[in-house]
Amino acid sequence: MVRVLAVERDRYPGLKDLDIQIVGIVTGSRGSVANEAGVDLVRALLELEGEGRFSIRNPDFVEMEGLQAARQLDYDVLVELTPLSIEHRGEPAISYIRSALERSRHVVTANKGPFAFAYRDLTSLADSRGVQLLHESTVMDGAPILNMARHALKGCRILELEGILNSTTNYVLSRMEEGLAITDAVELAQLQGYAEADPTLDLQGWDAAAKICVLANAFMEADLNPSKVERRGIENVTIGDLQEARARGDRLKLICRAARREGGGVSAKVSVETVPAGHPLWSVSGTGNALRITTDLMAPIVVVQDNPGVKDTVYGVLNDLITVAEGTNETSK
Amino acid sequence: MVRVLAVERDRYPGLKDLDIQIVGIVTGSRGSVANEAGVDLVRALLELEGEGRFSIRNPDFVEMEGLQAARQLDYDVLVELTPLSIEHRGEPAISYIRSALERSRHVVTANKGPFAFAYRDLTSLADSRGVQLLHESTVMDGAPILNMARHALKGCRILELEGILNSTTNYVLSRMEEGLAITDAVELAQLQGYAEADPTLDLQGWDAAAKICVLANAFMEADLNPSKVERRGIENVTIGDLQEARARGDRLKLICRAARREGGGVSAKVSVETVPAGHPLWSVSGTGNALRITTDLMAPIVVVQDNPGVKDTVYGVLNDLITVAEGTNETSK
Repeated sequence: MVRVLAVERDRYPGLKDLDIQIVGIVTGSRGSVANEAGVDLVRALLELEGEGRFSIRNPDFVEMEGLQAARQLDYDVLVELTPLSIEHRGEPAISYIRSALERSRHVVTANKGPFAFAYRDLTSLADSRGVQLLHESTVMDGAPILNMARHALKGCRILELEGILNSTTNYVLSRMEEGLAITDAVELAQLQGYAEADPTLDLQGWDAAAKICVLANAFMEADLNPSKVERRGIENVTIGDLQEARARGDRLKLICRAARREGGGVSAKVSVETVPAGHPLWSVSGTGNALRITTDLMAPIVVVQDNPGVKDTVYGVLNDLITVAEGTNETSK
Repeated sequence: MVRVLAVERDRYPGLKDLDIQIVGIVTGSRGSVANEAGVDLVRALLELEGEGRFSIRNPDFVEMEGLQAARQLDYDVLVELTPLSIEHRGEPAISYIRSALERSRHVVTANKGPFAFAYRDLTSLADSRGVQLLHESTVMDGAPILNMARHALKGCRILELEGILNSTTNYVLSRMEEGLAITDAVELAQLQGYAEADPTLDLQGWDAAAKICVLANAFMEADLNPSKVERRGIENVTIGDLQEARARGDRLKLICRAARREGGGVSAKVSVETVPAGHPLWSVSGTGNALRITTDLMAPIVVVQDNPGVKDTVYGVLNDLITVAEGTNETSK
């Protein structure tokens, strides 16, 4: 994020007009910087990439933690990038976001936890304050699936969602098909930056469950949270299972589903399923993600993201920041 | 279209608030009806589906042709649904649309010709009159690919497009893979309503060429028309070619491409290509369509439409009508 804004943005014509000043960067273990006139981004980047943390000799260096920053710094938009916590049911991100919204500040976040655990609370708070609460990169990273569902499917009622939404497990299953042990495949994913140091939330299906909750809450008027999702991860899948499926022409994939229940409500499920050849999710390999959307008015569509990387999460955040900037410009016209 | 508006709309919650009155329906060979207070849609539907044309005993019956209707009827939105003409370079649709825009009326069309042959003229005329000119169903029917490219990919510069955009040829190639002769496959497509009575524009790749022009003109600042597209259709593909590819695990597909040229401009191409297994376009069968979008800011995304039918074109038009209605409501606020 800092790299794109500090040194790469001239490469992208679409970012030229994005007028952004960073007044603070607050991290859990890498120190924090803040400056009302704008943090020195190039210096911040050199320190983060060189020493792995902000230097106490940096003139912008401050002692500050997240909640304090959300409450005290003078910003227009809070960009919240902490990781998902199932154990703490979306906290502390929910508190950070709530603090910003209560101050009538816009929020952009890449953390799915708040929308998996507190979707209605947070969206109604944002609505009541007349500010934007955007989270494009919470599902399928930068692929603009939320923008699409929100703005492009006019008049459609979404009936069913089916997708591959967790990159780590899809990557691990793809490598295991080639004969790699699950532990080696996970390690490879970590080395390449796809998997967290603790891959449990991915392997047990919690990350996928949180994502299908975000989608169902946002687009199917559901009131789900990850503990209400029927969930089985990939820990018990063997190389033999995968290779047998492959020999039959099929593949095993960790599939997320959400569907409207007869009589109201939405049920959601995460489990390893057999995907036959010719199915649009069959060819989604490596870190690829995909979502199939079934509506009442049109033939089902499938959006596939081809091997996204870390940069795609950054793009999702930028996409949201552009939306906020457009809204701010419209208001000030 | 008439069926959905006349008798089916109560089934779709998203269409409930769409306040539409049809003041005229003008056809080339099925007669025309017009009524400033609103045409009797149920009667119109019964006549069209029963007798194949409007009855001269219908109180709304009028003698009227397209250009006259576009110039004289009192409407807010012209919905233009004539078929593509390569021979007449997008006419008469371009004249109908121009007449409406000159009267400062919104236009929604499912005809790709005007955007393949006169994109810049028509969009700048619409802009100068402050009205909307929408054409979601010109490419991939109801799949909201234009809305997505326009509203969801914020900040991205589209570098490359690659897709399967013609349903008829994709259906024909899929049937030929199973051993059906091309003439039989075309006849089957006609029986099922996928192919026009004259399938030449599909088989020779003209329809696909027009579609890639629409996309390149709209999203890559191109100034293309179908005669500038390098084009080879499917007429010379044999069952043997298709089955040999299949035996190797590949498939032959009619692929449309557009890419930025070094030094400026955009080149476009339509031809039969070998698509390897695992490629996201490999699994697009039958009437399916798909588009792969490569941008500067995010991993490529692929949007697949799963076996669309005639109804999907109708949805594309409805999607645009909802957009116009939203804009009109905003202005009148």
